Amino acid sequence: MTPIYPVIWRDDRVLLIDQTLLPTQYALVEINDYQDMVKAIKTMIVRGAPAIGVAAAYGMYLGAREINTQQRDTFLTQLEIVAQKLRETRPTAVNLFWAISQMLKTASESLGTVEEIKHNLLITAQNIQKQDLQTCQNIGNNGLEILANKPEKLTILTHCNAGALATAGYGTALGVIRSLWTAKRLAGVYADETRPRLQGAKLTAWECVQEGIPVTVITDNMAAHCMKKGLIDAVIVGADRIAANGDTANKIGTYGLAVISKMHQVPFYVAAPLSTVDFELETGEKIPIEERHPSEIYQVGHTRLCPEGVNYYNPAFDVTPAELITAIITEEKVVKPIDLLAFKE
Amino acid sequence: MTPIYPVIWRDDRVLLIDQTLLPTQYALVEINDYQDMVKAIKTMIVRGAPAIGVAAAYGMYLGAREINTQQRDTFLTQLEIVAQKLRETRPTAVNLFWAISQMLKTASESLGTVEEIKHNLLITAQNIQKQDLQTCQNIGNNGLEILANKPEKLTILTHCNAGALATAGYGTALGVIRSLWTAKRLAGVYADETRPRLQGAKLTAWECVQEGIPVTVITDNMAAHCMKKGLIDAVIVGADRIAANGDTANKIGTYGLAVISKMHQVPFYVAAPLSTVDFELETGEKIPIEERHPSEIYQVGHTRLCPEGVNYYNPAFDVTPAELITAIITEEKVVKPIDLLAFKE
Repeated sequence: MTPIYPVIWRDDRVLLIDQTLLPTQYALVEINDYQDMVKAIKTMIVRGAPAIGVAAAYGMYLGAREINTQQRDTFLTQLEIVAQKLRETRPTAVNLFWAISQMLKTASESLGTVEEIKHNLLITAQNIQKQDLQTCQNIGNNGLEILANKPEKLTILTHCNAGALATAGYGTALGVIRSLWTAKRLAGVYADETRPRLQGAKLTAWECVQEGIPVTVITDNMAAHCMKKGLIDAVIVGADRIAANGDTANKIGTYGLAVISKMHQVPFYVAAPLSTVDFELETGEKIPIEERHPSEIYQVGHTRLCPEGVNYYNPAFDVTPAELITAIITEEKVVKPIDLLAFKE
Repeated sequence: MTPIYPVIWRDDRVLLIDQTLLPTQYALVEINDYQDMVKAIKTMIVRGAPAIGVAAAYGMYLGAREINTQQRDTFLTQLEIVAQKLRETRPTAVNLFWAISQMLKTASESLGTVEEIKHNLLITAQNIQKQDLQTCQNIGNNGLEILANKPEKLTILTHCNAGALATAGYGTALGVIRSLWTAKRLAGVYADETRPRLQGAKLTAWECVQEGIPVTVITDNMAAHCMKKGLIDAVIVGADRIAANGDTANKIGTYGLAVISKMHQVPFYVAAPLSTVDFELETGEKIPIEERHPSEIYQVGHTRLCPEGVNYYNPAFDVTPAELITAIITEEKVVKPIDLLAFKE
């Protein structure tokens, strides 16, 4: 079994697993310049908050590499333009903005020639990637501590894909599930298919199959029925942005899932790196929610689902209030949402 | 605007609107014998609890017509075989069993020749159809009384299709919506797409477009977010079987929708004819829940969604406990679930 890395730096360019082709086709897309990276993020060839952060960091380096000047100030000005293009790809995930600002910080703090700055930018992008992988592994281990020991083997429901594909590797929510599996404490996974983009049916299912983890795909609207039948021991999801009070933006459907979990007294965990926390936002109310094209709803493959003349509403994310979250599993420790503020730098 | 009738008796055979082809294609399927009706119900060419009842009634007549005997007893024995084949098509909707038993009652109570019994069976099937249409119109009118007058024009969320297509015509949940629209008390409809069969995206949306009712299609997992944003004034759904205590089996996803409605204090109504109530069942726990083929989950049109090696769970219905239901809108009156028993004959 080969580990899954959605963003690969090799031979002076980025290779991305084309996540729009999974699970029926596994293909790598070459990204040679930052414009291609902008497009890849927008079209969700790469998706998942931490993976977008890693991709954007390399995107910054690719953009830097293309800047043809020896003037430090000119370079920094042009790099800001690259940063802005990358920022405009997706509005909700905070990791994108975090990674871009890390890269800009490297640039502004680097001494030496433009060439040396460029070199440092590549190192920073690689470090962001390495750190994210380590972070996910730590999240996985920390998850083991908080999850119940009864039953001996747990059945976990997850939503969307917060797996290796959504991070530098290993995953956040799916990282905890991987750690449970390695520790022989996992009975299996229920994967919400996660309309409209079906990342659960396509990506989470695919990752589980790669690892031999038993996975049952259900439509999103079956989760409540499964909980009522006692099939689910805990829910673990990822996060795209967490406000300082613990309110969590994640893939659309997460909020409803949290409500039904509460109703059934099923523990509801968010697994996410601390870089997902936006300490600038007091609550989740101000998290911008991306709205995507209606075709994600009215079309699957080549099949048109809806008649002409219909309106659509397609928010890509929703916000789960902190009070519905049992705990947040971070790389440092497992925290109650209310205790997040202790991590503000 | 022509009214929508999913089951049509014309020129000595049944015509069904092929609901598997909507909304992209409108086509009528000819049903000349009861075996074809069995197939049409199983494959969901006709679906929706009351429409299945009407279709099964005509199926009984078609089966009766094919019985080649003048012996009353032989006829009744063979008719029971037809009844059994029709009963085995779908397990959850009680209207199916109700309509079949009405037809058997007609047969056993009819005096005269076998030909005369056959004639009476056709009359009964036609009466079931006429009565269902009238019932739906009464449900629509009764809904007007219970629904809030504030705001002046309501936005209603519905799940699956409990419309004209699911009944003899007019609809139950969508019947109430039609009545609101006629009374100029409707702002618009939010239609859950209703995975896996997408009856909301395909059928409810199509019916609304036919009538010029503004309809917004969302994925099922967006409903909670819409309620949180205050977009929904009330939820109205249909029912496939209601237990004597008011517990209601309806399309998968209804239960989760009821939970999130409660959480947001959005009134949650079930609109259904009294023939949907199964007074033999004290609670919803004993309602049999049909499980359908996994391909409904892993495939949409010609597009395969999931990788090989995945498990599936595909319950077609779930049960909403009575305490989550604000009221049941029947053709007689609007009742609290707990008051249903007063209607037991």
